[in-house]
Amino acid sequence: MGGSIWGRYFRLSTWGESHGKALGVVIDGCPAGLSLCEKDIQIYLDRRRPGTSKYTTRRSETDRAEILSGVFQGKTCGTPISVLVRNTDQHSGDYSDLAAVYRPGHADYGYDAKFGIRDYRGGGRSSGRETIGRVAGGAVAASILKELGITLFAYTSAIGPVHISEVHPEEVENNPLCMPDAAAAQQAALFLDTCIKNRDSAGGIITCIVSGLPAGLGEPVFDKLDAELAKAVLSIGAVKGVEFGDGFASALSFGSSNNDAFRSGPEGMYKESNHAGGILGGLSDGSSLILRAAVKPTPSIGILQHTVTASGENTTLQIKGRHDPVIVPRAVVVVESMVAVTLVDALLAGMGSRMDYLKTIFHQ
Amino acid sequence: MGGSIWGRYFRLSTWGESHGKALGVVIDGCPAGLSLCEKDIQIYLDRRRPGTSKYTTRRSETDRAEILSGVFQGKTCGTPISVLVRNTDQHSGDYSDLAAVYRPGHADYGYDAKFGIRDYRGGGRSSGRETIGRVAGGAVAASILKELGITLFAYTSAIGPVHISEVHPEEVENNPLCMPDAAAAQQAALFLDTCIKNRDSAGGIITCIVSGLPAGLGEPVFDKLDAELAKAVLSIGAVKGVEFGDGFASALSFGSSNNDAFRSGPEGMYKESNHAGGILGGLSDGSSLILRAAVKPTPSIGILQHTVTASGENTTLQIKGRHDPVIVPRAVVVVESMVAVTLVDALLAGMGSRMDYLKTIFHQ
Amino acid sequence: MGGSIWGRYFRLSTWGESHGKALGVVIDGCPAGLSLCEKDIQIYLDRRRPGTSKYTTRRSETDRAEILSGVFQGKTCGTPISVLVRNTDQHSGDYSDLAAVYRPGHADYGYDAKFGIRDYRGGGRSSGRETIGRVAGGAVAASILKELGITLFAYTSAIGPVHISEVHPEEVENNPLCMPDAAAAQQAALFLDTCIKNRDSAGGIITCIVSGLPAGLGEPVFDKLDAELAKAVLSIGAVKGVEFGDGFASALSFGSSNNDAFRSGPEGMYKESNHAGGILGGLSDGSSLILRAAVKPTPSIGILQHTVTASGENTTLQIKGRHDPVIVPRAVVVVESMVAVTLVDALLAGMGSRMDYLKTIFHQ
Amino acid sequence: MGGSIWGRYFRLSTWGESHGKALGVVIDGCPAGLSLCEKDIQIYLDRRRPGTSKYTTRRSETDRAEILSGVFQGKTCGTPISVLVRNTDQHSGDYSDLAAVYRPGHADYGYDAKFGIRDYRGGGRSSGRETIGRVAGGAVAASILKELGITLFAYTSAIGPVHISEVHPEEVENNPLCMPDAAAAQQAALFLDTCIKNRDSAGGIITCIVSGLPAGLGEPVFDKLDAELAKAVLSIGAVKGVEFGDGFASALSFGSSNNDAFRSGPEGMYKESNHAGGILGGLSDGSSLILRAAVKPTPSIGILQHTVTASGENTTLQIKGRHDPVIVPRAVVVVESMVAVTLVDALLAGMGSRMDYLKTIFHQ
Repeated sequence: MGGSIWGRYFRLSTWGESHGKALGVVIDGCPAGLSLCEKDIQIYLDRRRPGTSKYTTRRSETDRAEILSGVFQGKTCGTPISVLVRNTDQHSGDYSDLAAVYRPGHADYGYDAKFGIRDYRGGGRSSGRETIGRVAGGAVAASILKELGITLFAYTSAIGPVHISEVHPEEVENNPLCMPDAAAAQQAALFLDTCIKNRDSAGGIITCIVSGLPAGLGEPVFDKLDAELAKAVLSIGAVKGVEFGDGFASALSFGSSNNDAFRSGPEGMYKESNHAGGILGGLSDGSSLILRAAVKPTPSIGILQHTVTASGENTTLQIKGRHDPVIVPRAVVVVESMVAVTLVDALLAGMGSRMDYLKTIFHQ
Repeated sequence: MGGSIWGRYFRLSTWGESHGKALGVVIDGCPAGLSLCEKDIQIYLDRRRPGTSKYTTRRSETDRAEILSGVFQGKTCGTPISVLVRNTDQHSGDYSDLAAVYRPGHADYGYDAKFGIRDYRGGGRSSGRETIGRVAGGAVAASILKELGITLFAYTSAIGPVHISEVHPEEVENNPLCMPDAAAAQQAALFLDTCIKNRDSAGGIITCIVSGLPAGLGEPVFDKLDAELAKAVLSIGAVKGVEFGDGFASALSFGSSNNDAFRSGPEGMYKESNHAGGILGGLSDGSSLILRAAVKPTPSIGILQHTVTASGENTTLQIKGRHDPVIVPRAVVVVESMVAVTLVDALLAGMGSRMDYLKTIFHQ
Repeated sequence: MGGSIWGRYFRLSTWGESHGKALGVVIDGCPAGLSLCEKDIQIYLDRRRPGTSKYTTRRSETDRAEILSGVFQGKTCGTPISVLVRNTDQHSGDYSDLAAVYRPGHADYGYDAKFGIRDYRGGGRSSGRETIGRVAGGAVAASILKELGITLFAYTSAIGPVHISEVHPEEVENNPLCMPDAAAAQQAALFLDTCIKNRDSAGGIITCIVSGLPAGLGEPVFDKLDAELAKAVLSIGAVKGVEFGDGFASALSFGSSNNDAFRSGPEGMYKESNHAGGILGGLSDGSSLILRAAVKPTPSIGILQHTVTASGENTTLQIKGRHDPVIVPRAVVVVESMVAVTLVDALLAGMGSRMDYLKTIFHQ
Repeated sequence: MGGSIWGRYFRLSTWGESHGKALGVVIDGCPAGLSLCEKDIQIYLDRRRPGTSKYTTRRSETDRAEILSGVFQGKTCGTPISVLVRNTDQHSGDYSDLAAVYRPGHADYGYDAKFGIRDYRGGGRSSGRETIGRVAGGAVAASILKELGITLFAYTSAIGPVHISEVHPEEVENNPLCMPDAAAAQQAALFLDTCIKNRDSAGGIITCIVSGLPAGLGEPVFDKLDAELAKAVLSIGAVKGVEFGDGFASALSFGSSNNDAFRSGPEGMYKESNHAGGILGGLSDGSSLILRAAVKPTPSIGILQHTVTASGENTTLQIKGRHDPVIVPRAVVVVESMVAVTLVDALLAGMGSRMDYLKTIFHQ
């Protein structure tokens, strides 16, 4: 089936291999009349760009976005928006020795088992560069959400054992680790320095908060808002878990403490707490959406590892080339992007939920 | 959009409200030639049946499955399998006082915000009874998997603070909590007795293990096997998080310890460890699939709670009627069912991944 | 894949074999707040009921619709609407001799080739009774359209060589052939009497007109309104062709005569002609939608036919049992139903076409 | 929703406006291991290229296809295949006077009604150039079919009143009208010369024949093979009708003459006739698939026409620029392409129809 198409209404069709000619995305189903230019997309792409600090791969792609269709005179037309990013800094030679060996922690073996063929250069389609299309789509989705008064805020909440203890939004852009806590960022940097010295790698946790969501977003049963978001976030390579609100901690709680009491005040209805993370029974409840994703340590490490060859012989492997000691900071914008496209999809899905909405639009 | 249809190839269309006439599922896309009878489905439904112990609701539904189509002379025909379960023990009167009040921790408020109308009897479509259709579908999926040598094993791994420390598969059927550790089950029962006494409720964790999966199952990018499973499991009401393999713990690990080394032995390729939980880069890696789901405490509790009415006035609520102090044990078969339908869907999706598969089937 | 699920937003999941226990449909994605009762559906089902004249099969099913879910206090809830129709007049014995022989003009051979198994009783899933679910869904869709000021009118425009020459809408209910021209209906009846005498069967043409459609309905490129309608109508068994507006005749026309001139008048924009049948470039153009479907002669005839057995031996076949000499009149409501569900789907799809529609619904 | 994504398994995501920077397609779900190079695609694109005779537009695009992803070392990888075609001969100036006026017979008015904005240059997304992505996808699909022994043959069977009376496949490439009958082609050319002189345009009919299809292809009920093909072909701009086998003529036939008798011979089962056009009950029946599509006259003509402006005022319009007097010959490869992609999709869908197919692939 391929599986490179996301969404039901707002759909991303991404394509491209790490060391192919280019990567990109076709966005189908974007409503017409949205202001959009290449810069809107470039800002998002720059947030995932490598080469910005010693904590990210040294591959220095400029990742310049070109909009090829779907925008006319600065506005979206309702037709597919095609975004292209040319690859410019491929070093395919670096990877030739990986053609016949399965890297531990990577998709190599699964690819060969599934397809019987694999573009082994830089991970091919399972490279982190695959997320370029997601982020371009996320930039468009975030523009839509912004016009509806919905804002996203994603950040690194932990790297290895170092957790943030405060959240200062403006701080996220001050450190290369995207942590909203300067002290934690400093500690995490020291921790990563040791990782780099050991030719090892680390994982971490990404948090995403969404404000301004209307209540009732999502579909009951299978297409619950949290179910769609879980798929969105777990479709990002290296993510191994996702939770909403108190998440796994809620398994330890009691109904009496985990339930969020509804209250009514001068500004309308609100909840006294938000253990639910803004989603009840698969529908948004009017409070902030809170999502956390666990990211595993980068599997590409410089330490000697046991593995097998494609022909089934035991061997050892020491990976060379350019790799991130931690991918968490660069994945922050990917998580934010996947949340954004999922929310736009849910909004479009929700438009048909009531007869009176239909009448508002179509019955003059 | 509705959102009551699951899957791309093996599709469940579930329907039914807690206190309506009936509930059921239409299974579209089941391969022809599978042996199937009502008993196969009944066995699964009985595992989620209420009224079997003091730890589950006292509502005593027999939940008798009737197959209305798609099976002829004991075999599936490739046409939709319709399964019907009549409701027999509704006490709609119990719920009339909930019509105009939003229960904390429930979808009530979201439903009204979304649809402007709500069947308030027993939670309507957001009741746990909605899972009857899932479980009937799961029974069919599990039959397919069995014929392919794939087996599922789901169990309660924690209730509140009580975690299992051993896994004896046969033990799961010996205690009403579905725990594979008799000692832990006893402890958990004591813990739940206190909850019941306090008119409070508890949460827990469900684990599902799948053996016998071929390598290469799943699709790269958006339809990763873990992404699909995450959506499947988080679409179950009360689930607040999901993780694969080491999951959230992997965020604390190092690449050197988190990577599973590949090895080759007399019985073919294997992994020295399984931190990945059987999925790498979204594709199965030939080892056991390991998934864990966090379940929140039952939101329906007998303790007085703060809430608001549908017209926005502050009020208090004390829920009466029949409720599970913990839903984890009954949700075990639901998790297993959702995993099963997702795996069958992924298997069907995977059939088209190679030209030589196509030639095997269609080119004589 | 199954293929028994229709639609993207307004989805029908139909099920049931001719001689199984029951047939039905699950309607997912119906907007909440629509007034709906069993009688609304029954009226439509009665229009396709057999046994009403000598021109339809003598099988006398009452086809009583039961709504099992999705409606509460007379209104749709936004949750799946399950409709059940029990089979009551099966004579399975009639068909036992068809188990091992392929009826010409029927799907028997294809079913065995595809599935390797077949419910041969009365055509199983490929029986005309399969349309019960479509018609129940069509009744719901027509109710939605009515609230938006959109009306459908379908009728028999030809039976064999007898074409109507006038259209008097009220006349359609006066004759069992659903022809809006009394004189033509009389002629057609004589023609069919000869068919019956010859144990032969006839075909015909069904026309469907839709008024009140807003302009701009449909999607450019693949999901054009006429493309979706063509699929909808050709998915009905026995339909062999479909055309819009002048259809095949437009191939003989010139651009200068086939183009419909736009004009502006006191009541807004209109077209001076409607060769296009209300659709230009896949989008509705504000004038009436005109669709015609060609229906082949009923393949079940009493004349001796050549055919082969399931084991590949030449044989002859003389079909007994109850069969329509022409299915056109009973298919009229099926065509109308498929048009209705397709239009509702297109309306729901169209809600997300503009940023200002999104803002109207979600931005307060 | 956008509607620029085709298919369920073998999916095309096309994009691009007539006078934008480029057009293209992303093909998702192509099985791995297919030999593919740019030349395979170029051959198909050249068949729809303009500027090859006086009967096609004088716009002289080279339409050079570039494969950007999904192919490695000459084989498809199972990952998305992105094909890009840069626009090189846009004359946007030609169209500026069309910005505020609705061309009769075109989608202009519908676009504005739907989206509230429109790229008016050369028809934007509703231009015939939109089919570039379809044809690139069709080339890939045809390569897959070829490996399975399935061949397609499409041709012009009528232009205006001139019908072919013989079918010589090799003749199709000998005349610019793609007619398999040299005498008819000459007559049609004379007919078109008159159209050109009159600044008028003509329509016609395209026939597509498919040989080598396995029996049992397609899905019962909604996703019938003919239903999918009907959608595919009617999604091509200017197509106003489609029929299979005897099509509309079958409405005039009798069951006794329209039924195709099955026979068994030394080479297996066959049909004595093929009135059904190779499809019975939505499933292929082992004989050749026969499809015909009616194409309306090119709406862009040089004759003065009545129309209205975007602000609703009556006006006249005389279209200048480069236009085909007939689009039928260039649409032949588009019809063939849409049939090809639909058949590949149906083949992939059919792989999951039987338990024994599943076991063949996955159970070792």
